[in-house]
Amino acid sequence: MTDPATLTPRGRRTRDAILRAAEEVIGARGFNGAAIVDITRAAGIAQGTFYIYFDSKEAVFRTLVEEMGRFTRRSLSEATAGAKDRLEAERLGLRAFLEIAATRPLLYNIVEEARFVAPEAYDAYFTGFARAYSRNLEAAARDGTIRAGDAEIRAWALMGLAVTLGERYGQRNPEADRDRVVSEVFDMLERGLRP
Amino acid sequence: MTDPATLTPRGRRTRDAILRAAEEVIGARGFNGAAIVDITRAAGIAQGTFYIYFDSKEAVFRTLVEEMGRFTRRSLSEATAGAKDRLEAERLGLRAFLEIAATRPLLYNIVEEARFVAPEAYDAYFTGFARAYSRNLEAAARDGTIRAGDAEIRAWALMGLAVTLGERYGQRNPEADRDRVVSEVFDMLERGLRP
Repeated sequence: MTDPATLTPRGRRTRDAILRAAEEVIGARGFNGAAIVDITRAAGIAQGTFYIYFDSKEAVFRTLVEEMGRFTRRSLSEATAGAKDRLEAERLGLRAFLEIAATRPLLYNIVEEARFVAPEAYDAYFTGFARAYSRNLEAAARDGTIRAGDAEIRAWALMGLAVTLGERYGQRNPEADRDRVVSEVFDMLERGLRP
Repeated sequence: MTDPATLTPRGRRTRDAILRAAEEVIGARGFNGAAIVDITRAAGIAQGTFYIYFDSKEAVFRTLVEEMGRFTRRSLSEATAGAKDRLEAERLGLRAFLEIAATRPLLYNIVEEARFVAPEAYDAYFTGFARAYSRNLEAAARDGTIRAGDAEIRAWALMGLAVTLGERYGQRNPEADRDRVVSEVFDMLERGLRP
């Protein structure tokens, strides 16, 4: 496998075509239902060419999970850049996450399937998010923007809520009214359920 | 395949041995990593006997998902039977759910893998829960036990949070302090994050 950093522009385009084809084929059929030949056919390249870029179907799969991680982090950090405080950042972050789930449904599938296909990549994905999330919640509790509480437990709870809402009101239902979903959820998260 | 309702006591024991072996083998290796022969070997029966009870590996898998659904519903309704109001029922329900995740980690894996292996069973599982959950939240909002809000969106948000916390503080970490997790999460859910 060639180190991606040493690829020519043409090599980078081919590698990218393989990744997009793999997203489409594996995301739609699942890891076990997708063969390398399906990926190379969708990418319009010879089967042997695949191995110049990736060692195996597992390798291209792991690369997609890592790509989804980078893409999600970048999207969230762009979406929350102008937030005036943590609660607004949470709200904008959830809104952006639901949008990612709606617009990249196959990549969303791949991250969920990683739990079974590439457990280390799955763990790295969520543990990385949880760590960054906890730090943000901790800082917000310190400066009084949110009430004090266990940042790590809150981070996992909020991530879990986002993942399922992303599936329900994004990935499987791109027509859902996501602004309303975010409003309802934030009414609960900011003010609580207690009457 | 024999209708389970017509089985003799001995037949029921054999069917149950197959289900427990399938839970263990599929839960540990994943659906694609587990062969029927692994299941029959673990159950201590001849391979042909399997087909008296189930048509395929998919069939035994779907039965496990349905079983997990019944088991979870029964556990939650037992756990919440004595609750004085909806918020207490939510708290007791989450506590019981984390315990299920800690004590039946393999069955938990199977429900999550159903998303890819038996999507209709997965949908039925979560949609059934969401419907019952929404009804409870709606009734509580009507009688003023919780603040008014969209019951369906809240139900999916709360289920998502429970699924991820179950994975994190139950299935993967049976030693976690689940009482503390539930306290922290309910502090957020009841009173909200706003300072």
